[in-house]
Amino acid sequence: MRFRNKPWAGEKIAQYPQYVIAAPEEHKGKWHEVFGNNHPLHIEVGTGKGRFITGMAEANPEINYLGIELHQGVLASALDRLIDAELPNVKLLNVNAAELLSYFAKNDVSRLYLNFSDPWPKTRHEKRRLTYKTFLELYEQILVDGGEIHFKTDNQGLFEYSLVSFSEYGLLLKDISLDLHNSEFEGNIMTEYEEKFSGKGNRIYRCEVQYRT
Amino acid sequence: MRFRNKPWAGEKIAQYPQYVIAAPEEHKGKWHEVFGNNHPLHIEVGTGKGRFITGMAEANPEINYLGIELHQGVLASALDRLIDAELPNVKLLNVNAAELLSYFAKNDVSRLYLNFSDPWPKTRHEKRRLTYKTFLELYEQILVDGGEIHFKTDNQGLFEYSLVSFSEYGLLLKDISLDLHNSEFEGNIMTEYEEKFSGKGNRIYRCEVQYRT
Repeated sequence: MRFRNKPWAGEKIAQYPQYVIAAPEEHKGKWHEVFGNNHPLHIEVGTGKGRFITGMAEANPEINYLGIELHQGVLASALDRLIDAELPNVKLLNVNAAELLSYFAKNDVSRLYLNFSDPWPKTRHEKRRLTYKTFLELYEQILVDGGEIHFKTDNQGLFEYSLVSFSEYGLLLKDISLDLHNSEFEGNIMTEYEEKFSGKGNRIYRCEVQYRT
Repeated sequence: MRFRNKPWAGEKIAQYPQYVIAAPEEHKGKWHEVFGNNHPLHIEVGTGKGRFITGMAEANPEINYLGIELHQGVLASALDRLIDAELPNVKLLNVNAAELLSYFAKNDVSRLYLNFSDPWPKTRHEKRRLTYKTFLELYEQILVDGGEIHFKTDNQGLFEYSLVSFSEYGLLLKDISLDLHNSEFEGNIMTEYEEKFSGKGNRIYRCEVQYRT
């Protein structure tokens, strides 16, 4: 995805603090207050234009969702979608995934979604991949015991890399599909990217992994 | 693969005890005596017509190979190949994989190959799949500590199932390719089946897993 310079985006985001949490560090350890209930919290790291997280929130009213996106221009599109959808159980964070510990405490998050993350194909960029061991360590520090990562991508290399990285970290592989759109998996909610690239005939890979307790 | 009735196969196999070991239970714990050296032993469970195991033996003279095949008609074809190849480091066993413990002791085997194993797609046949947990347990009892399984298949369902089964058993995923023939993997030796089905455009899946020490 290219990130166009959208100078108006920051301003727009600031106008909707009910959707894009303004000071997320203040909610660390008490996100239930933000949603006004004790439902489980699922987060998507790299939420892009927000189609997935909004669709999930609509389909699962008993779950709270937070979409995390660093790039303001993209986040502004997700915000538009949230404004239209008027859902009480989904909000956005304009923060960097590398700083998750500033915003979440252990047990804050029940499940973490990674969808079509940047593959960073060059070996020297391995540490930037969201399935690199330092990220898996980060996620463990904010997830509940036995928390899960649900991961989708059309990038074969990233998927292969991630399966090995999950295994090396000791995560349990619970479910895998090597061709999601031709599988028996029900209730798949597509991202914008997923619709575009599966339409071109790309396979979508998906897996669920769990931290061992 | 269909198994044709070949009444002459048993007779032929009996004529070549230097290639098809006649009383394998006698060599349990001392396979090095059969090969006359202390090279590592790699076995293929379900060796079919023997193209893989013969090719591996030719490419790796410092490794001893045993191909295990239950069906005599198929094994007879593998035997033909061995007679032609005249290699000192490859032999065959006409036994059932479920009875490996009768023929091998702990540490006898350094690596185990599974190539295009029968997928047994029906759930009620799960226990027959060569990557089912009882087989993984069997393999562990004959492999060295940290021994590896190298697995290839074109069957997507079997591959997905096996990755989950390996993970549940606690095996470490060391390497994976979701499209072997379009990968950077070097030195792949094709089975008969592999050549036929990849020629039809089927993807070949491959992984290496290791027992944790």
